Amino acid sequence: MKQEEKKTLQIPYEECTDGSIIWRYSKNPIIGRNPNETIARAFNSAVVEFNSKFVGIFRGDTKSTIPYLYYGESEDGINFKINKDPIVFYNVDGSKHEIEYAYDPRVVKIDGTFYIMWCNGSNGAPTIGLAETKDFKKYTFISSPFLPFNRNGVLFPKKINGEFAMLSRPSDGGHTPFGDIFISYSKDLVYWGKHKLVMKPSWQWWQSTKIGAGPFPIETKEGWILIYHGVTKTCAGMVYSIGAALLDLNDPSKVIGRTDNYLMTPEMEYETIGFVPNVVFPCAALVDNKGRIAIYYGAADTYLSLAFTTVDKLLSVLKK
Amino acid sequence: MKQEEKKTLQIPYEECTDGSIIWRYSKNPIIGRNPNETIARAFNSAVVEFNSKFVGIFRGDTKSTIPYLYYGESEDGINFKINKDPIVFYNVDGSKHEIEYAYDPRVVKIDGTFYIMWCNGSNGAPTIGLAETKDFKKYTFISSPFLPFNRNGVLFPKKINGEFAMLSRPSDGGHTPFGDIFISYSKDLVYWGKHKLVMKPSWQWWQSTKIGAGPFPIETKEGWILIYHGVTKTCAGMVYSIGAALLDLNDPSKVIGRTDNYLMTPEMEYETIGFVPNVVFPCAALVDNKGRIAIYYGAADTYLSLAFTTVDKLLSVLKK
Amino acid sequence: MKQEEKKTLQIPYEECTDGSIIWRYSKNPIIGRNPNETIARAFNSAVVEFNSKFVGIFRGDTKSTIPYLYYGESEDGINFKINKDPIVFYNVDGSKHEIEYAYDPRVVKIDGTFYIMWCNGSNGAPTIGLAETKDFKKYTFISSPFLPFNRNGVLFPKKINGEFAMLSRPSDGGHTPFGDIFISYSKDLVYWGKHKLVMKPSWQWWQSTKIGAGPFPIETKEGWILIYHGVTKTCAGMVYSIGAALLDLNDPSKVIGRTDNYLMTPEMEYETIGFVPNVVFPCAALVDNKGRIAIYYGAADTYLSLAFTTVDKLLSVLKK
Amino acid sequence: MKQEEKKTLQIPYEECTDGSIIWRYSKNPIIGRNPNETIARAFNSAVVEFNSKFVGIFRGDTKSTIPYLYYGESEDGINFKINKDPIVFYNVDGSKHEIEYAYDPRVVKIDGTFYIMWCNGSNGAPTIGLAETKDFKKYTFISSPFLPFNRNGVLFPKKINGEFAMLSRPSDGGHTPFGDIFISYSKDLVYWGKHKLVMKPSWQWWQSTKIGAGPFPIETKEGWILIYHGVTKTCAGMVYSIGAALLDLNDPSKVIGRTDNYLMTPEMEYETIGFVPNVVFPCAALVDNKGRIAIYYGAADTYLSLAFTTVDKLLSVLKK
Amino acid sequence: MKQEEKKTLQIPYEECTDGSIIWRYSKNPIIGRNPNETIARAFNSAVVEFNSKFVGIFRGDTKSTIPYLYYGESEDGINFKINKDPIVFYNVDGSKHEIEYAYDPRVVKIDGTFYIMWCNGSNGAPTIGLAETKDFKKYTFISSPFLPFNRNGVLFPKKINGEFAMLSRPSDGGHTPFGDIFISYSKDLVYWGKHKLVMKPSWQWWQSTKIGAGPFPIETKEGWILIYHGVTKTCAGMVYSIGAALLDLNDPSKVIGRTDNYLMTPEMEYETIGFVPNVVFPCAALVDNKGRIAIYYGAADTYLSLAFTTVDKLLSVLKK
Amino acid sequence: MKQEEKKTLQIPYEECTDGSIIWRYSKNPIIGRNPNETIARAFNSAVVEFNSKFVGIFRGDTKSTIPYLYYGESEDGINFKINKDPIVFYNVDGSKHEIEYAYDPRVVKIDGTFYIMWCNGSNGAPTIGLAETKDFKKYTFISSPFLPFNRNGVLFPKKINGEFAMLSRPSDGGHTPFGDIFISYSKDLVYWGKHKLVMKPSWQWWQSTKIGAGPFPIETKEGWILIYHGVTKTCAGMVYSIGAALLDLNDPSKVIGRTDNYLMTPEMEYETIGFVPNVVFPCAALVDNKGRIAIYYGAADTYLSLAFTTVDKLLSVLKK
Repeated sequence: MKQEEKKTLQIPYEECTDGSIIWRYSKNPIIGRNPNETIARAFNSAVVEFNSKFVGIFRGDTKSTIPYLYYGESEDGINFKINKDPIVFYNVDGSKHEIEYAYDPRVVKIDGTFYIMWCNGSNGAPTIGLAETKDFKKYTFISSPFLPFNRNGVLFPKKINGEFAMLSRPSDGGHTPFGDIFISYSKDLVYWGKHKLVMKPSWQWWQSTKIGAGPFPIETKEGWILIYHGVTKTCAGMVYSIGAALLDLNDPSKVIGRTDNYLMTPEMEYETIGFVPNVVFPCAALVDNKGRIAIYYGAADTYLSLAFTTVDKLLSVLKK
Repeated sequence: MKQEEKKTLQIPYEECTDGSIIWRYSKNPIIGRNPNETIARAFNSAVVEFNSKFVGIFRGDTKSTIPYLYYGESEDGINFKINKDPIVFYNVDGSKHEIEYAYDPRVVKIDGTFYIMWCNGSNGAPTIGLAETKDFKKYTFISSPFLPFNRNGVLFPKKINGEFAMLSRPSDGGHTPFGDIFISYSKDLVYWGKHKLVMKPSWQWWQSTKIGAGPFPIETKEGWILIYHGVTKTCAGMVYSIGAALLDLNDPSKVIGRTDNYLMTPEMEYETIGFVPNVVFPCAALVDNKGRIAIYYGAADTYLSLAFTTVDKLLSVLKK
Repeated sequence: MKQEEKKTLQIPYEECTDGSIIWRYSKNPIIGRNPNETIARAFNSAVVEFNSKFVGIFRGDTKSTIPYLYYGESEDGINFKINKDPIVFYNVDGSKHEIEYAYDPRVVKIDGTFYIMWCNGSNGAPTIGLAETKDFKKYTFISSPFLPFNRNGVLFPKKINGEFAMLSRPSDGGHTPFGDIFISYSKDLVYWGKHKLVMKPSWQWWQSTKIGAGPFPIETKEGWILIYHGVTKTCAGMVYSIGAALLDLNDPSKVIGRTDNYLMTPEMEYETIGFVPNVVFPCAALVDNKGRIAIYYGAADTYLSLAFTTVDKLLSVLKK
Repeated sequence: MKQEEKKTLQIPYEECTDGSIIWRYSKNPIIGRNPNETIARAFNSAVVEFNSKFVGIFRGDTKSTIPYLYYGESEDGINFKINKDPIVFYNVDGSKHEIEYAYDPRVVKIDGTFYIMWCNGSNGAPTIGLAETKDFKKYTFISSPFLPFNRNGVLFPKKINGEFAMLSRPSDGGHTPFGDIFISYSKDLVYWGKHKLVMKPSWQWWQSTKIGAGPFPIETKEGWILIYHGVTKTCAGMVYSIGAALLDLNDPSKVIGRTDNYLMTPEMEYETIGFVPNVVFPCAALVDNKGRIAIYYGAADTYLSLAFTTVDKLLSVLKK
Repeated sequence: MKQEEKKTLQIPYEECTDGSIIWRYSKNPIIGRNPNETIARAFNSAVVEFNSKFVGIFRGDTKSTIPYLYYGESEDGINFKINKDPIVFYNVDGSKHEIEYAYDPRVVKIDGTFYIMWCNGSNGAPTIGLAETKDFKKYTFISSPFLPFNRNGVLFPKKINGEFAMLSRPSDGGHTPFGDIFISYSKDLVYWGKHKLVMKPSWQWWQSTKIGAGPFPIETKEGWILIYHGVTKTCAGMVYSIGAALLDLNDPSKVIGRTDNYLMTPEMEYETIGFVPNVVFPCAALVDNKGRIAIYYGAADTYLSLAFTTVDKLLSVLKK
Repeated sequence: MKQEEKKTLQIPYEECTDGSIIWRYSKNPIIGRNPNETIARAFNSAVVEFNSKFVGIFRGDTKSTIPYLYYGESEDGINFKINKDPIVFYNVDGSKHEIEYAYDPRVVKIDGTFYIMWCNGSNGAPTIGLAETKDFKKYTFISSPFLPFNRNGVLFPKKINGEFAMLSRPSDGGHTPFGDIFISYSKDLVYWGKHKLVMKPSWQWWQSTKIGAGPFPIETKEGWILIYHGVTKTCAGMVYSIGAALLDLNDPSKVIGRTDNYLMTPEMEYETIGFVPNVVFPCAALVDNKGRIAIYYGAADTYLSLAFTTVDKLLSVLKK
């Protein structure tokens, strides 16, 4: 594992041709329906670099339509081979951790360990599940950081003031029609506290019903860039768009900047048609040393897609 | 009518090319929007063989968007000519039976008589209507077997222990968010009783909101194969998929097997876009003597489509 | 049992002092909270004469608040001794019929047999349960006449045109905000059909949300008198009042007369305060040979109370 | 401005090829997503002739998804250039009239003045806003004719019995599931009264949930032709179709004729896919001296589209 | 009619004994259930002085539970005799004005004419009805000032800046869970405009769901005193309390003061038990020349009650 | 403070006279409406012994109906004098901790410090607030242990396996129609984790909607006795009853016993009439060295009442 970081991986990227802040990959979606014989739809998923490859933790909805997490890998970050069997988690004591359902994973690497968070079915109620792996072979379930009902838990990629920090969105048990982003802290990933409100829905309609953190925040000199989803409710259901915010480096509950305009909204056929029409849902972002960003986002709860941006572009709309 | 059975009709069929249990007709949909000048959409419909032809009882939603039942016929089971005027039903006493609205028909032949069931508007409330015809010219309204509110009534194609048996799904007056399949018995098609629960929604999300019988059950040595629809609720509305169950030959309230995975879910453009996106709704099945099956299903409450399977394939997933 | 009818029982009765059509017993309620050590509240209940006594089938909500049916008896029709253990029903084959819950019983005697109907929990869904007894010792479960969801099933006290006739109110699984009275027929109490609408809610607010049959209909020369409950919905919940209708003797689906005004509405403390405030719910009526009527009604889902009227008084408001 | 009327403009038009009453423009939609850099979707919009051009008041939803009104113009009525900044309204006293949000405009010319009505956010509640302009440069806010909650306000194009007349649809603050069309009168556009019901939803399902006026009524010898939208509710949301009615010339609250069948319903991809699938929403109509009509309608809350008809065709279905 | 004002009437009044701002009459309620043979409950009602008597326009809910308006009169303002037949209204043209239902009246005298406002059923939807009388014998229906849905319309007792002014609360068709007080103006009582928001619900829970004007505003040197009802929603329904506000004399849309605390909330048995428990609903106030005030308020939608206060006491809590 | 424990206080107590497990104080309620000039209703409140007195933290709803916490004290545990001003909390840094609203307090003493928990309004959303005091004069706000939405937080009276343990009930922002009891642990009262489900609602109707912990658990040799409230939903709102459970001493997420029957349900006038009819809500319990228990419970969200039981009686129904 020593050589892990040696080979420099090239993240998927295409140049912007039209002045957008975020622009789509020209060959979207990168994962279509029925990617393998057990998975019906693989969409809201997280990709990171590991061992000179791109590895992903995928939300795969089986043909029994129960979502679980799956491991997949890719040479180029675009073409993925996804396992047919879901990831098995073990408790700290070595026993198997039973999974009712698991969806919308995020993955973040802190000090050489990969942490996976997802919406975890626990006694029939959704809350955040938190696990770790060092090799994407053995996965240890660490804790349910919060009481139900919670979704969209996202760890920061490093400790803040010596503590782990996690964003999350308290909710209820259904198709929650409300939702704010909170931050919580922990010294050990098991006991959590110091909860603070970060952001509420806003008057712009695309983010007026609920909001939730997307990929783990990207550290910049100006602050943490948080790419998030915002939701509005039409007379034909909810519409999910993408926005961004800039959070204070030392106290991320302080919002320095936030997009009034969405940065991306469902427009393409693979975003407007599918199991849940009109959803773009970002779960992961790769950043290279030039500040180029590849965003992995679920489309219509059916496809996995890619979009691109840069740190500078995002900062240009978030600093003011 | 004597020669009715002589000519062997070839049911519509295409071979499976990808290992699916149920696979779609390559030229779907077989009926598009506005099939004639009075009907806007013809979709959830029932086809049977009669007099060396394929005849269908079609759900046709007029341009006033009220659904009625229409007669249509076809040489090949694919290209149908549908009447412009809805079917007129007569009561046993010869008077005309007024129809408020009628939708989602099923047709089954028992002892030379064709029985038609549908969701029938009665005093403003939906329940099952039951009629018979011998020639698809004269239609006699027999009874409303059940009190409102009920939908998806499906007669078995022969008597069980000397009695008619009908599946149905008690419901409420709106877009019912619940629904189990029950079986009821009758000696005369007028008085019904001995109601028993057959199946409830299940934990698999695609069939977790409600379920309803599709085509009339197919008799096999292993049991009755029941193709049914299962429904889940997303934040953009309900999604209808197709599953199957195996019911005991002598006591069909006993479920021998049942699909955990859906066998078909809305994936094609004609299933995911339309008046009600994301609906596949099976109403009829033709079975030939080789065990090949042609399923007629409504797509997006807009189109009529075909899918194929075989008795053996279905049994292979239902027996365990 | 031969002497059963010998002794003439005097039904509970007080003269009217204020010109009302229906007036209350001066010592209401006749059953208070916690009538014995197992029952918390005994209210919507049915009383008949048997063996020179008044016997009752009581709705008793246990201290686990699950309603079951209990046997009780009384010399005067006012002071009842209620059993501590609920009635046990046996199937026709002699096996025990399991009861999930049972409430709002009615009892009617036809040709020497007492028939009991109630709202019966069956697979978690409410529908009508029907049982018989000849001696109030052995109770045989006959059938669930209708599919769920149904409540307020009431048999007529004799066959009509050679068939049993039952009123009922199709509903849904919750605190149903709608409900019409239907009539259905049967030759054998097992198979039911020929369903017809009898009455819908009306524009008078007290009966504008839903209606349901009360005691079994009282036969008069002018027609069947049906005492029923009507419900309206305020911003603090539903209010149950009492009305009456006159149904055609030979075709009870024909409504000859019906009260525009309620005949009784919750006014007394025992009707306006309790587990469900503002409920008067009639379940039984005794009629003597002078046409005097004693109505047993539940009050506030907490108490059993008595009210009086006469056949003539009721007819005077129903004939027009 | 004197020459304004001189040049005869040719309204956009294509001949009907299939016998429809209303038929679509072959190159729909005429405005796609992101028509300029500030507007994400321009759809339910109003076009009139002015100064030998076609000018439009557009509903433009910004990329913050707040709708405002925008000015645009076109030589041919098809290709429009829309301003990037929303229209600014001034009060009568010259102060700026603040706009919370503004959508679904209609424009009508009366005695040389153009009146603009729209759904106006006022203290967080939607009601009708009414403004005037003579030159599409200076816009004066006249009044909020009605108390909240109201939408789809449409002035008649001339006074009736000496008074201004406006159609509107009282509603509530959300995705209103009910709605009738009313007419109100005014002598001065500020004080309104003499409210009368014009039309309620009807039993045809496409117009059974709510209805609302579309373009301003077209005067004919037979009466006012009102093109309107009708809405139904499926288990996947609301569907908006187009119908028409004929109103009495002198008393438009009298409905002479009304379509049982929709004249247009969402069928095309640009109508069935988008921000709100399955919406066709007419806001404006141009009529030439041959009685040819060009209808501007919003599609899927995403596109602006054109459809055509003629006065004679509409009358042929409305007179009876 | 000339002597009308001669005899000085003594309004009902009792001194305060406990320092309250508003205190109850010691013999409440003044009207109990079934005040005459046609009325079941007379409660939210308006009393004024006329011809040396107290006359009232009563909300009487009949025994068919439809509310109408009734005339009643009293020597002492406490003991009322109420007519058995509802008030008949005539249109300006002399024809009878049909009443679907009418409730919650207010009465105000302006320049010798009494104006009556109430919630008026019109085409099945509630809005304000406005009528006038000079003698409480002939009642002329003037107009429906506003489109549905509206309730709690209250005219000011004199013109403001030369125009009639009315408070009202736009709402929806059911047990509206929201509601602000607006003011509108008219020169002729027929055409209304210049709508402005006066007050919204506030953060204090008792007035956080909706608010509505009570008696007509009382003119003082400091401003108009508006006694109003505020509503909160518990898990057992809505609770109505009483508050007050001080409005600017010349522009009553300016709120000078407003109670944080309720001035009265349901506490007595006749307020907490009844058709709708926990309602105190003020509709009228009498003020004498010493500034003493008698408030008539409905209790529990069942009783009419009296409470007292003084102008000085109210001002003491409203000025700040 | 040293002598604090010296004088032995006699807890309020009356002997049981009727065999009940829990019985009411004969002079209930102990606090009526308007206990002082600022508080309208003082009900769900917590009492402990301190300094040879009984001190209480009261939920007082002001006349602006906002609930805050108030200090009160009593010599006999029955007659309390409650402060007029709410308790002021200070943050650890000495700054004032602002309170939006605060209700349903519990108080528990651990190692000489009193900990107060309540439902705390935070950014408009309810969650648990946790504070400490040693002298009931200075109150320090420690933390919000959990993300919103949460209610009924109850600390155990001593550490379990070296950690603080708290019960709570995750919920949503309204009149939550669901709710399970969870347990969470903390080493420092700031960071919380190791969340586990303790109990869900059960099939008995009185506890079928939601449940929540009442007084802090009482330690016995057999386990922790948890007195809790169970809620059911009638057509007139929610009804709150009282039950009990026995939890494992070392792992309180293990339920050893639990009441099928409620131990108390609203029956008395002060429990069935009030701001929220039909509520009994226990918040505190005093236990003496003979195992006698005095339970303080809120009645109808209006009164504070007392009930009695003994450890032995409770164990007798919980052990099996």
